[in-house]
Amino acid sequence: MKRIMLKVAYDGTNYHGWQIQSNGETIEGVLNRCLSELFQEKIEVIGASRTDSGVHARENIAVFDTVSQIPPKKVANALNARLPEDIRIQDSEEVSTDFHPRKCSSRKIYEYRIYNATFSMPTERLYSYFTYVPLDVERMQEAAAYFIGTHDFKSFCSVDTQAESTVRQVDGIEVRKDGNLITIRVSGRGFLYNMVRIMAGTLMEVGRGRLEPADIARILEAKDRSAAGPTAPACGLTLIKYEFL
Amino acid sequence: MKRIMLKVAYDGTNYHGWQIQSNGETIEGVLNRCLSELFQEKIEVIGASRTDSGVHARENIAVFDTVSQIPPKKVANALNARLPEDIRIQDSEEVSTDFHPRKCSSRKIYEYRIYNATFSMPTERLYSYFTYVPLDVERMQEAAAYFIGTHDFKSFCSVDTQAESTVRQVDGIEVRKDGNLITIRVSGRGFLYNMVRIMAGTLMEVGRGRLEPADIARILEAKDRSAAGPTAPACGLTLIKYEFL
Repeated sequence: MKRIMLKVAYDGTNYHGWQIQSNGETIEGVLNRCLSELFQEKIEVIGASRTDSGVHARENIAVFDTVSQIPPKKVANALNARLPEDIRIQDSEEVSTDFHPRKCSSRKIYEYRIYNATFSMPTERLYSYFTYVPLDVERMQEAAAYFIGTHDFKSFCSVDTQAESTVRQVDGIEVRKDGNLITIRVSGRGFLYNMVRIMAGTLMEVGRGRLEPADIARILEAKDRSAAGPTAPACGLTLIKYEFL
Repeated sequence: MKRIMLKVAYDGTNYHGWQIQSNGETIEGVLNRCLSELFQEKIEVIGASRTDSGVHARENIAVFDTVSQIPPKKVANALNARLPEDIRIQDSEEVSTDFHPRKCSSRKIYEYRIYNATFSMPTERLYSYFTYVPLDVERMQEAAAYFIGTHDFKSFCSVDTQAESTVRQVDGIEVRKDGNLITIRVSGRGFLYNMVRIMAGTLMEVGRGRLEPADIARILEAKDRSAAGPTAPACGLTLIKYEFL
């Protein structure tokens, strides 16, 4: 038996997230079905990041075990031939049989994209959140700096989390503007449930003037979800990179 | 009666191009239907660029005449409320009643996007053409320079054109690479049918080594469609800007 790791990219628009659900198609479900067909054995993947419904990925990680003799490097191509075009394996390689993608130390990079203009732009609508409320990027940059470092992110975590600790380390965060597109890029060892989307929703509150940049420190201190801004919509979020350390 | 100009953005993925067809939904058809409903009179737009099936636009132009009293500036918002989300008016304003968008001097900017990597990227697939054949961007840049200026572009024009003259002026062309995405940006006073897509298809032939950069001069000279490369697929093309001079 060998364990194979896949780098998986997907457009989350038409999926009910990563994790298998009874009520709709999921990334995990499609991978299990296509892998089981390809290998002619029952395959069940283990995902690194179980992204929410509508969230996209340029690089998420899945591992699975197989007894087949297909060379691991060839799995990407063979699997892509069976997958729908909104899911594409970027790489496949053998890993040690005890490798578990959620139990290894890793760094993730997420991007949250906001299209900020009077009217929405059709060719941006699927991979960004649109708001016509003018956002001040300099204020958002100033606010974002408060996230860097190790903090208790309880205020930036969905109340229905099952995490034992809500302390997390944000290694870097960058807010940049290119035309009408504002991109928040954040990297860290781990993120709580909805953490990036709540950070994005709160930075937008700063950008529109409802909160001050320094309020981020106060919100972190409050350790109360209701102190932070709303959870920004899923379509703006993309998992960019997943690095094992 | 007044004439109103619309700046129209659209995701061309699900449309049979701009111009009304008997066999499928078109941008022009949707605009006529939604405008006629909005104004409660029969409205027929005149488009500036009649883009092909699958081509996108960030800014195309349409004008129409109406006897209604709706303030021209408010048309954008009112029309957007009726349009599907893959078509969005960016601006609306009154123009003189003899303004015809195809009979005015204008400058258009087009972008052709190519996603060049071993495997396609789902979140790029709708707005770029994917090829796994490695393309050398420096060669493409060198080749692109030959297009600048006034030339007979007969080799870069679909054989079923109805244009009287095939002489056109390319004001600028830029080929740049950002990660795996190659963007060809070209501006000019006017383009022949399929001209940008044939230019892109020919630049890709240079990028992969089947043609030399200097071959562009020879192909222009040939004045023969079969001397140039293939017509690059529609999904990679976006009309970026339409300026009246």
